Amino acid sequence: MNAPERIHSPMVDAAQLRRADHLIEPLFLQRWSPRAFDASNLAPENLMRMLEAARWAASAYNVQPWRFVYALRGDAVWSRWLGLLDPFNAAWASKASALVFLCSDRLMPARDGHARQPSRSHRFDAGAAWAQLSLQAAAMGYQAHAMGGIDVDAVREVLAVPEHFEVEVGIAIGRQASPTQLAPALRERELPSERLPLAQLAFEARFPRVVT
Amino acid sequence: MNAPERIHSPMVDAAQLRRADHLIEPLFLQRWSPRAFDASNLAPENLMRMLEAARWAASAYNVQPWRFVYALRGDAVWSRWLGLLDPFNAAWASKASALVFLCSDRLMPARDGHARQPSRSHRFDAGAAWAQLSLQAAAMGYQAHAMGGIDVDAVREVLAVPEHFEVEVGIAIGRQASPTQLAPALRERELPSERLPLAQLAFEARFPRVVT
Repeated sequence: MNAPERIHSPMVDAAQLRRADHLIEPLFLQRWSPRAFDASNLAPENLMRMLEAARWAASAYNVQPWRFVYALRGDAVWSRWLGLLDPFNAAWASKASALVFLCSDRLMPARDGHARQPSRSHRFDAGAAWAQLSLQAAAMGYQAHAMGGIDVDAVREVLAVPEHFEVEVGIAIGRQASPTQLAPALRERELPSERLPLAQLAFEARFPRVVT
Repeated sequence: MNAPERIHSPMVDAAQLRRADHLIEPLFLQRWSPRAFDASNLAPENLMRMLEAARWAASAYNVQPWRFVYALRGDAVWSRWLGLLDPFNAAWASKASALVFLCSDRLMPARDGHARQPSRSHRFDAGAAWAQLSLQAAAMGYQAHAMGGIDVDAVREVLAVPEHFEVEVGIAIGRQASPTQLAPALRERELPSERLPLAQLAFEARFPRVVT
């Protein structure tokens, strides 16, 4: 991008546009879910750093139910993987640098010779791992965008996901680019999301009588 | 704690004891789930900062399905809340500075006049919010310890949790103390947990044929 273009289409800076109501680490405001990526290549080691951050998430009994299946831009599976996303997501994610499908194990590890029991928290724990991945990506100057809009059955087949794993989300990882590359409708939406006031999310001692 | 005692019972430093296989933000190694807390009071504003970090987590369609119900040490509900934890957890969590129960909304917001539909990702999204809370706590010199061992039915009743919310976890937040205050069996376990190798958690292109 040359300088004049940059003047007319500044890169969105989430940390500048968002305002925290209480002092927090800047990283939480920097992390957001853009759709404009620059189609650059991601060094495998950089992807490993993001997965490493996810690896250190907390989980019930430290069972670490998360599994990551990944492809880097240019890999043989890349175009087939784009077809695992909803067409809406595939359009913008085609310029990402990596795609990751995050799965979670519905079963706890076997213990004391008993059969494996269902996990109560595999999805919750997988969400913690995703958050850490996304924060590490933001700390490295990348952004990770999680997508619920995926063809779960096709992911299961193409990635050979074992039956006892849940397919949670697809994740597009890349370097942010100018919104000008997006179709007009998406360009207008290329802004960091806001949040509900904390007063609507956090309650002292008990839920309020009326909860929306 | 006086100086001689500190020499004989050093505070556990997770970031010193853990080794990352790939370079990540130090905060991910610092965050862990201790059980020895110092029974100090937590300023309400400091709890708000932790919840604020959670507030900025990503969620599907930005619906923010997480809700936090909290009590500070010394609040009228404190001892009753300890009774909502498994006795094992109540024993050590009694020295925490705050307790939080994290709930997630099973229903998506109403749209276009249609009835509310089930959410596919409320637990996953709540896990992301928990991770951000725990990382902010660690950044502030606190630790947050999530507990699956809670009496969900009692939590629901005492906290007036609406039917369409899932009770995910209890969270004990506090300042780390010396392990010497713990019962001997817990004292030996007061070490930051390890993790499976990334090679067992992350796969290129597809799951391996044999997954444990």
